[in-house]
Parts: sequence; C-alpha cells; structure tokens
Amino acid sequence: MLFRQLFDAETSTYTYLLADETTREAALIDPVLEQVERDSKLLEELGLKLVLVLETHVHADHVTGAGMLRERTGATVAASPRGAPCVNRKVAHGDVLRLGRLEVKVLETPGHTDDSLSYLCEGRLFTGDTLLIRATGRTDFQNGDAGQLYDSITGRLFTLPDDTVVYPGHDYAGHALSTIGEEKRHNPRLAGRTREDFVTFMKSRQLPPPKKLDVAVPANRACGVIAPQPQA
Amino acid sequence: MLFRQLFDAETSTYTYLLADETTREAALIDPVLEQVERDSKLLEELGLKLVLVLETHVHADHVTGAGMLRERTGATVAASPRGAPCVNRKVAHGDVLRLGRLEVKVLETPGHTDDSLSYLCEGRLFTGDTLLIRATGRTDFQNGDAGQLYDSITGRLFTLPDDTVVYPGHDYAGHALSTIGEEKRHNPRLAGRTREDFVTFMKSRQLPPPKKLDVAVPANRACGVIAPQPQA
Ligand SMILES: [Fe+2]
Ligand SMILES: [Fe+2]
Repeated sequence: MLFRQLFDAETSTYTYLLADETTREAALIDPVLEQVERDSKLLEELGLKLVLVLETHVHADHVTGAGMLRERTGATVAASPRGAPCVNRKVAHGDVLRLGRLEVKVLETPGHTDDSLSYLCEGRLFTGDTLLIRATGRTDFQNGDAGQLYDSITGRLFTLPDDTVVYPGHDYAGHALSTIGEEKRHNPRLAGRTREDFVTFMKSRQLPPPKKLDVAVPANRACGVIAPQPQA
Repeated sequence: MLFRQLFDAETSTYTYLLADETTREAALIDPVLEQVERDSKLLEELGLKLVLVLETHVHADHVTGAGMLRERTGATVAASPRGAPCVNRKVAHGDVLRLGRLEVKVLETPGHTDDSLSYLCEGRLFTGDTLLIRATGRTDFQNGDAGQLYDSITGRLFTLPDDTVVYPGHDYAGHALSTIGEEKRHNPRLAGRTREDFVTFMKSRQLPPPKKLDVAVPANRACGVIAPQPQA
C-alpha cells in the first residue's frame, strides 16, 4: 500500500493519499480545493490514477477539492447520504469500498456533524473531525451532538485494536498521527470522563464560529464546485 | 521501531522522534525550542526516555530545543564537529549511533552548510536541509557551497536504495515525505541537471537572508540555551 499524508497549512487540514501499488488506483481522503494542483502533480509523479475521493463530512473550515478532482479524473466522490447532495456514491456503516486490492471500510461516526464518517484501511483509521489527537471535533454547529460524538468515539473507534493508527482531519499542534491506545489513555476529553462529563465540557465551551463556515458549507454541499454567477 | 514526525508550523520545521519500542530509549532529530513542552509531553505519554538529540546542522531559521532537552533529561546532543561548540558528541561520516537496538548511521552531506549531516535508520533517511522534497536547501550562507551540495546529494544520498524514505528538515508545501527514487526522478533542481547546471541555478537565485539568521545561528551554537545577560 502506498500512503501519503499531506497538509494544508492555511487551514491545518490533513489530506490522505492511499493507493494500491500494483494496480496504481488511488484514493484521496478530504482533499483541499487550494491544493488540487499539488495533489494532481503528486498523483502524476507517482504514476497513480485517482479513482476515489472520500469525504469524512461536509467541512466548515475549508473548501473541498473533491468536485474539481472528479471533473479532472472521473473519480467517484463518496460520502454520507446525510451530507453533500453532489456526492455520487453514498455510503453507510459497514460498507466496504474497493481500491484495487485494498479495502476501505466505512464507519458512521456522527457527533461532530450528523454526516461524519471514519474510514479504516489496513490498520489506518481516518477519523475526520470525529477524533483528533488529544482532542475531538466541535459539536456546536452542523447538527453536532456531544452525546452522539462520545458514543461514536467510545463505541465505534475505541473498540478497534489499540495499535490502530489514528490519522485525523486536522491537527493544530504539529502532531501527524496517534493510535487508538494512546487516545484511550491520553485524550484529555475522554480518558476517565463519563458521557455526562464530556457533554457538560463540550457545552461549556464558548467558541466563535469557524471563519469559513458561511462560505465553506454551501461550497462543500456542491463538492467545492460552485456554478459561475450569471453576469449582470 | 516507534516513529513520529512532528511539525512546527511557525517555521515549517520537521522534528522526528525515533525510539526502540522495547528499551524505550528515544532520540529526537532537530527539535525546536518552542516545541520542547509538546515533545516532552509526548515522550512522557509514550513512556519513552530521551537519550539522544541529533542535529542535522546549525540552523538559521529556528532555534533548537537540544540544549533545553539535554538539561531536562541528560540526553546526549550529537552533531558535526564543524557545527555548534555546545554539542557533547561530535560525529563523523560512517559513525553509528546506538539507540537501544536501533542503529543510526551518520552521513556527512555538506553543501547547505559545511556542518550538514544526514542520518539513516532502518530505511528512513533524515536529510535536514540537504535534500528537501522536490527542492534542496539554500547554499548562500553559513559556508554553503552549491557544488558540494550537488556532490552530497548525488554521490551520497542518491546511491541509497530507491525505496529509502526521505524525511526532510522542512517542507513548505504540505508534503510529509518522499523517497530517494522519487527525488531522483522528480526533483526539478537535480533530475537531468549536471553539476554545472545546478551550481548556475543556485547562484542565480536572489533570496533575502533567513528572517532569524542573526538570532538563530548564535543561539544554536549554544544549543539554544543562551546564558542570561548580566543585569545592569
Ligand atoms: Fe469539520
Ligand atoms: Fe538550514
């Protein structure tokens, strides 16, 4: 399996490239619009064909490159049916997506948003904004729900083997990855906290809305490809 | 082998954590002063003991955390004898440093600076600012020499196996890693360029000096620990 982690410094967003080294079929998880050139170039240099774009959820903090990549390559864009209408493959909990001989398993992990998915491929877990390193996603917009997030993390992610590698959708402290075992032991929002504690903590936070919320959500519902406005 | 890549967003610097999973002995390559708390916390959470800090060179763009980490942990700071006088283990080409049962091999790769080293451990090559992803370090200060840099890269790094993973000291485009094979084929400064082309190109660049040069170089010659100034 060929694997790359990519970073958008402007929004601290991680994008992931997965590929079958034999068939050269590739997937990108959560590509960023401003990085489509970088990602396209890397795919080309590595001799890969993009066949799949996986979205963990409708993002509020950056605009997706999914639509532009689909236009360029014909790749399928997969996400939750609760998310962006523009998606052409709606996936549900337990679904398995094939990428050459690799299997990508879909886990529904709502709570940060109601459409949040995680993806599991060969011991690597892509958690979007559900589980971050020593943190979690927010639950105060886009139908977020703290109780549901706690259940998704503790019931669905923390039941995976401890050595499962956690690759988040963002990191703001310069960490690239974690493991399920590490997050169980050291995530300060979860370790030794009950569901009630977690919900109380998440409700007590007073955060400004994400800077790009009003732009990013509608753009992402269209896979990042907004129809040009009619000229006056 | 336990391995982590860490990023300092302010200076786009990568720090690397390597450890023997059995003995729990750890090394940090190119730690950043402002990230000493983060790195110390991670070492503690992972149950690791820092025994070694490896510097690829005297940096001009950030201040090292080596001295502060040494004070806290008693770790040995290793680097080139051509670099910082504060270092307590001076290493030369071909030396092998032991980290539990891991071996870290020292490669002298001058050119970005005269003291530049690369480190090789189990197929991972830490190139400092010698070889960057699709780029190279600068050669216009700190006794840099473009011809020497070309020789270091093509003669010492590009003779390693193509699947050797390249971990640079910086990346400004969000790439985390590359491979020797990839850089041989796709590094625009090197692929298909002669030594003369490379030297001409490097000389033609007109870059402002690194922002922190005047502060960082003296600080790093003291391993980032500057004696307090006498009070007036
Ligand atoms: Fe999000
Ligand atoms: Fe440097």
